[in-house]
Amino acid sequence: MPRVVVDVMPKPEILDPQGKAVLGALPRLGFSGVTDVRQGKRFELEFAGEVTEAVLAEVHQMAETLLSNPVIENFTVHVEQPA
Amino acid sequence: MPRVVVDVMPKPEILDPQGKAVLGALPRLGFSGVTDVRQGKRFELEFAGEVTEAVLAEVHQMAETLLSNPVIENFTVHVEQPA
Repeated sequence: MPRVVVDVMPKPEILDPQGKAVLGALPRLGFSGVTDVRQGKRFELEFAGEVTEAVLAEVHQMAETLLSNPVIENFTVHVEQPA
Repeated sequence: MPRVVVDVMPKPEILDPQGKAVLGALPRLGFSGVTDVRQGKRFELEFAGEVTEAVLAEVHQMAETLLSNPVIENFTVHVEQPA
């Protein structure tokens, strides 16, 4: 059964305190080389039927109205075949 | 500059109240056809240098120790070329 994934990330111009907290913690844990971290959300939606273009359009609407805040977040939608 | 993405999702056997809340809200908003929703986290890590195998191994360690809780969450690591 295909799965539709919606990735929601803070817009580049929006401060991301969670990402900054991770970035600050990495050197304290002995990790170096990371210059920036952004933290967002990932939604995995399972569908009973086939994932058609109409279903993907509906997922875009879900992402806009429920899964993301379009003022501060961007989202991407893609289909994934579960392993 | 390549970006390394860490996706952290609740394990299948773990209850996911955030996902369940989204699943419950969808019909109320007029969306049908979704049978399950899982909500997790997405981390985008930027690196100054090249992303080698050693860097990816380090990202796995970061994911295990800081970005995820291995008791209740699974994670995947992949490299992404920013658009």
